[in-house]
Amino acid sequence: MLIHPDRLFPVDPAARDVARRLYAGIQDLPIISPHGHTDPRWYAENEPFPDPATLFVIPDHYIFRMLYSQGVRLEDLGIPTKNGSAVERDPRAIWRRFAAHYHLFRGTPTRAWLDHTFATLFGFTERLSPANADAYYDRIDAALRTPEFRPRALFERFRIEAIATTESPLDPLKHHETIRQSGWKGRVVTAYRPDPVVDPDFEGFRGNLARFGEITGCDTLTWSGYLEAHRKRRAFFREYGATSTDHGHPTARTANLSGSDAEALFRRVSTGDAGPEDAELFRAQMLTEMAAMSVEDGMVMQIHPGSFRNHNDAIFSRFGRDMGADIPSQTEYVRALKPLLDRFGNEPNFTLILFTLDETSYSRELAPLAGHYPALKLGPAWWFFDAPEGMRRFRELTTETAGFYNTVGFNDDTRAYLSIPARHDVARRVDCAYLAGLVTTHRLDEDEAHEVAHDLAYRLAKEAYKL
Amino acid sequence: MLIHPDRLFPVDPAARDVARRLYAGIQDLPIISPHGHTDPRWYAENEPFPDPATLFVIPDHYIFRMLYSQGVRLEDLGIPTKNGSAVERDPRAIWRRFAAHYHLFRGTPTRAWLDHTFATLFGFTERLSPANADAYYDRIDAALRTPEFRPRALFERFRIEAIATTESPLDPLKHHETIRQSGWKGRVVTAYRPDPVVDPDFEGFRGNLARFGEITGCDTLTWSGYLEAHRKRRAFFREYGATSTDHGHPTARTANLSGSDAEALFRRVSTGDAGPEDAELFRAQMLTEMAAMSVEDGMVMQIHPGSFRNHNDAIFSRFGRDMGADIPSQTEYVRALKPLLDRFGNEPNFTLILFTLDETSYSRELAPLAGHYPALKLGPAWWFFDAPEGMRRFRELTTETAGFYNTVGFNDDTRAYLSIPARHDVARRVDCAYLAGLVTTHRLDEDEAHEVAHDLAYRLAKEAYKL
Amino acid sequence: MLIHPDRLFPVDPAARDVARRLYAGIQDLPIISPHGHTDPRWYAENEPFPDPATLFVIPDHYIFRMLYSQGVRLEDLGIPTKNGSAVERDPRAIWRRFAAHYHLFRGTPTRAWLDHTFATLFGFTERLSPANADAYYDRIDAALRTPEFRPRALFERFRIEAIATTESPLDPLKHHETIRQSGWKGRVVTAYRPDPVVDPDFEGFRGNLARFGEITGCDTLTWSGYLEAHRKRRAFFREYGATSTDHGHPTARTANLSGSDAEALFRRVSTGDAGPEDAELFRAQMLTEMAAMSVEDGMVMQIHPGSFRNHNDAIFSRFGRDMGADIPSQTEYVRALKPLLDRFGNEPNFTLILFTLDETSYSRELAPLAGHYPALKLGPAWWFFDAPEGMRRFRELTTETAGFYNTVGFNDDTRAYLSIPARHDVARRVDCAYLAGLVTTHRLDEDEAHEVAHDLAYRLAKEAYKL
Repeated sequence: MLIHPDRLFPVDPAARDVARRLYAGIQDLPIISPHGHTDPRWYAENEPFPDPATLFVIPDHYIFRMLYSQGVRLEDLGIPTKNGSAVERDPRAIWRRFAAHYHLFRGTPTRAWLDHTFATLFGFTERLSPANADAYYDRIDAALRTPEFRPRALFERFRIEAIATTESPLDPLKHHETIRQSGWKGRVVTAYRPDPVVDPDFEGFRGNLARFGEITGCDTLTWSGYLEAHRKRRAFFREYGATSTDHGHPTARTANLSGSDAEALFRRVSTGDAGPEDAELFRAQMLTEMAAMSVEDGMVMQIHPGSFRNHNDAIFSRFGRDMGADIPSQTEYVRALKPLLDRFGNEPNFTLILFTLDETSYSRELAPLAGHYPALKLGPAWWFFDAPEGMRRFRELTTETAGFYNTVGFNDDTRAYLSIPARHDVARRVDCAYLAGLVTTHRLDEDEAHEVAHDLAYRLAKEAYKL
Repeated sequence: MLIHPDRLFPVDPAARDVARRLYAGIQDLPIISPHGHTDPRWYAENEPFPDPATLFVIPDHYIFRMLYSQGVRLEDLGIPTKNGSAVERDPRAIWRRFAAHYHLFRGTPTRAWLDHTFATLFGFTERLSPANADAYYDRIDAALRTPEFRPRALFERFRIEAIATTESPLDPLKHHETIRQSGWKGRVVTAYRPDPVVDPDFEGFRGNLARFGEITGCDTLTWSGYLEAHRKRRAFFREYGATSTDHGHPTARTANLSGSDAEALFRRVSTGDAGPEDAELFRAQMLTEMAAMSVEDGMVMQIHPGSFRNHNDAIFSRFGRDMGADIPSQTEYVRALKPLLDRFGNEPNFTLILFTLDETSYSRELAPLAGHYPALKLGPAWWFFDAPEGMRRFRELTTETAGFYNTVGFNDDTRAYLSIPARHDVARRVDCAYLAGLVTTHRLDEDEAHEVAHDLAYRLAKEAYKL
Repeated sequence: MLIHPDRLFPVDPAARDVARRLYAGIQDLPIISPHGHTDPRWYAENEPFPDPATLFVIPDHYIFRMLYSQGVRLEDLGIPTKNGSAVERDPRAIWRRFAAHYHLFRGTPTRAWLDHTFATLFGFTERLSPANADAYYDRIDAALRTPEFRPRALFERFRIEAIATTESPLDPLKHHETIRQSGWKGRVVTAYRPDPVVDPDFEGFRGNLARFGEITGCDTLTWSGYLEAHRKRRAFFREYGATSTDHGHPTARTANLSGSDAEALFRRVSTGDAGPEDAELFRAQMLTEMAAMSVEDGMVMQIHPGSFRNHNDAIFSRFGRDMGADIPSQTEYVRALKPLLDRFGNEPNFTLILFTLDETSYSRELAPLAGHYPALKLGPAWWFFDAPEGMRRFRELTTETAGFYNTVGFNDDTRAYLSIPARHDVARRVDCAYLAGLVTTHRLDEDEAHEVAHDLAYRLAKEAYKL
């Protein structure tokens, strides 16, 4: 049996029984996926996925970073190089390499997500291994050619009630338009991720500003025109269902400059006449500007700070961004957020959802902040921490100070479409296990635990993200 | 049943049995409360508490910060504003609002403390809810009018052997004098908390210095006179039973300036001619000066560092201090304490008890320091961490390096009088659960665990604080 | 019974059964001890250990730091002073003092290591106490006079397959030469620890440089001669079995200076014309130089950063180094290691093993780095964290991101020879307990867990250290 019905539940029989009962009440709830990176083209075009390697290995940085750390070359996994030099083209060869290293994922969430997918979607009962790699390949490959494995069919099979993709302001949202025109009922919304026009260190920032002006018809070389472009583009995104914005900055720093200082700063960064401190200050100021617009337009704001992007120079030069070399770093929130919170922290109709890659902030900073400010909510355990132990720590380190109701349920945050049910299932199980612990140590009554389990699996995400 | 006899014990039956046996041996021990913020007026005047809302909701920042974070206005909870503008005056309306949001406290220590109090003092067996809010109110309100609910009767019912309040050097200690004159046998002592005359950033610091001079008859505008005023006032506090001092600074920084540098620094801060770095340095120097006096007079010293006070400007302007907007921040100890430890860390008759709001320091800094320096001891899990998971982490992160005997038992540190038995009970249960884990994994023999349980519940606090 | 056969296994019966089965498969595996500080003289001369106090108490900073923290003077434990002033000379008196304070070690790994040693080597069944201190002393003292307790006999009894000692480049390795000449088959190798000639803040650094030149015949007052001396000395160490280098720096900082900048920096530090920043930069540059040599000569590199050495001035003045006053401090890796990783992080034949005293880095920095860079591996929980809870946290905080195969098994890192089997046994038990948790929560199949247990206990250390 590849996946066990009691996986991730407490070992103690009494606690396990409670967890089973809690889980039984929520396991079939629809999926709300308010934050992620699936490709809207899938839903728009509804084409079959090409082959097992292209579906599972090549786009998944969790997988190839682990293989790379153990000496497998990215070229041999078919990862395309920037200069177009030769890489492995045979998907079966890639798949065999992956299978040969499957033991590396022992104890990792990648293993749990994959086994769940292999078992529930393809009916496998035996662990992937070099011996059965070809049999795995063939069965998956055959399945992908069937109508049941087209993106929209999977969407429905996964019971996705709503999913958000993430787009740059420069994106024309044509896939979203296609979806809308198609008459298909699946609810796929966009989210506004303005980093390419907000972060002066983003590749091509000045060109992006120019393009931003063309798209919006605003003079994005002036501060007021630039802000107006954001307002217009946010409105455009809302037409395609967007209820949220997202901001991936190196730090959580915010600023609250005077209008003239902000304008002067914008002039420096927009003309390329800005150093690292100006870039950081501009990102900081823009978080506060985005908050101001959220107060106006009701879009929920998310901050995902603290990743040192593209840490490995050689990999970045050869393969580009998102190659598994983004590394968390220490992240401060208490001082960083104060300028923004001084302006908008007490706003009744503003929601700012905070994420972290620095677990030390959970109990020290994030839970105390979220347990006080009306505007703040805590996003779920993120990225490297979207895993059973990471999720358990999230609850243990935040609940006693912030409670459950200053959190927002689960985000899968994934590019790996087929893993979505597995990820939500892990989150639901871990939360049920945590609640079962509270119940069996008599900190929470079981009737309440059922209600909380439902809230964490469904209601809080739906309400926090206005979906 | 509102509280379960096995609450907080391990789920595994074998471990639970051990925990029960350990707890049975200590559950009825008297309470030593060596550090807290109850109001000495209660014991002096022995007047009834006015009503349920005024007793439970209005003064408890754990409660109102959570309600505020979920959109309840402080005005609607009866929190008085600084400008005297209208707030809710009806205690029953406040109580109903509190009851309507009782689910927000699921998984928090506030819930555990309240349920314990409701069950053991008022006999409730049903969880507080909107439906029974009035019944709760009426029963509590009636009880508060009876002699059994006067402060001194509760003191005796709680089996408090000794309790420390906390006063500023500017406090005349008249309530303590009244208690002494009254002939009542309850042991209520004061503690010396000189922040108002030590911290240049404290509201009214310069006025406080002047008042400090008037009270002590010392020339507190000179460095030597200022120090002499402290010595005199510490002696005065000792007349009212004080055995400890307490220091709530933004950081743990200490300094060891030459006499002339210290004098020059005092001149700058006492004349208002000092910037933030001078203020920080003066606080740092004063920790070392207080340590020097403790070496002389035997008072136990406590440092509670790392809170960013009054983080929410709007709340501070409207409602003042202690409104649930104090947020922990990262706190360094190794370098910060060195100047003080270089002078007094090896003193055999000096005790410095360290607290933290930054749990990362437990295993990295505090346990290694306390496991070496004779003068250092670790205070219990504090504030946001005075909760089951927080206490468990404290033991798991400190015991292997510092052992049990460099810790000092439990502090309730509370303003909420009725919660004192609940808080000590939680601490005793969590420690018994931790010890039961050691026993059942064969790291500690059960006879030893009984002794340690007794030490943690009673002896260590009594000895460390000389009570 | 002093040690229980199920110690450190999970309490739940089902999980305990799995742990027992896993442990049964690995408990008798030979010991690979790739990093430690035992004295090669023991193996060379094979003389009896003198007496219980000299064997157990005087050299063990875990023991005397705890006693010192509770008011026992180091002089009364026989710790020699630098000025040769009188200290306790009677080993039995020292032993009695130790026994009188044995309760201080409750809950600490020291207690577990000692009980294991007392039980398995000397047959004790009763806990050490003041009452049986003399009986303990006499039995141990008698045993130490027998051939079975000579160092080589113990080596064989402990089933040590290979052990590494640690020597300075200035060490002539004569004990290693004696071992080699003796024909004894025990595998004792050295390791290259160049701190005395790499760290400008090391006591006697400039004298050490001169001596380094004499030993190697290189002109160690020039940058090229200095580097050449390292190359020669590394080769010499390899003749005595060395497969690794080790670097104990205050931080993890690395640098990648140009040749001329490095040369100028070396000139400043070698002539004593360098401040703290130069010293730090030189250490940083030397880590990268050592990495360059490792790429050439295949020696595995280890970094042990983050200890604030000799924190207690009075103790350092009176007793010298390594007196239990080394305190961890916050340690950053992501930015610190980048210069070195930019040059060598992707080298297929280079291994850099990272250790930490700052547990916050496990999940935030170290696991993400090791889960990406081919050159990086994670060393086991170190020093204060080489204890059951510390080891559990290490696995919980690293496995989900880095897996098991970017870790390198266990290091005992000890000076306490008799504790070696106990330490490896604790590590094996804690890993089995962790794996049993994965198996019983259905995250790992039991057949895989057996394989991982074997890898963690034996194979990974052997392969990572090339032993």
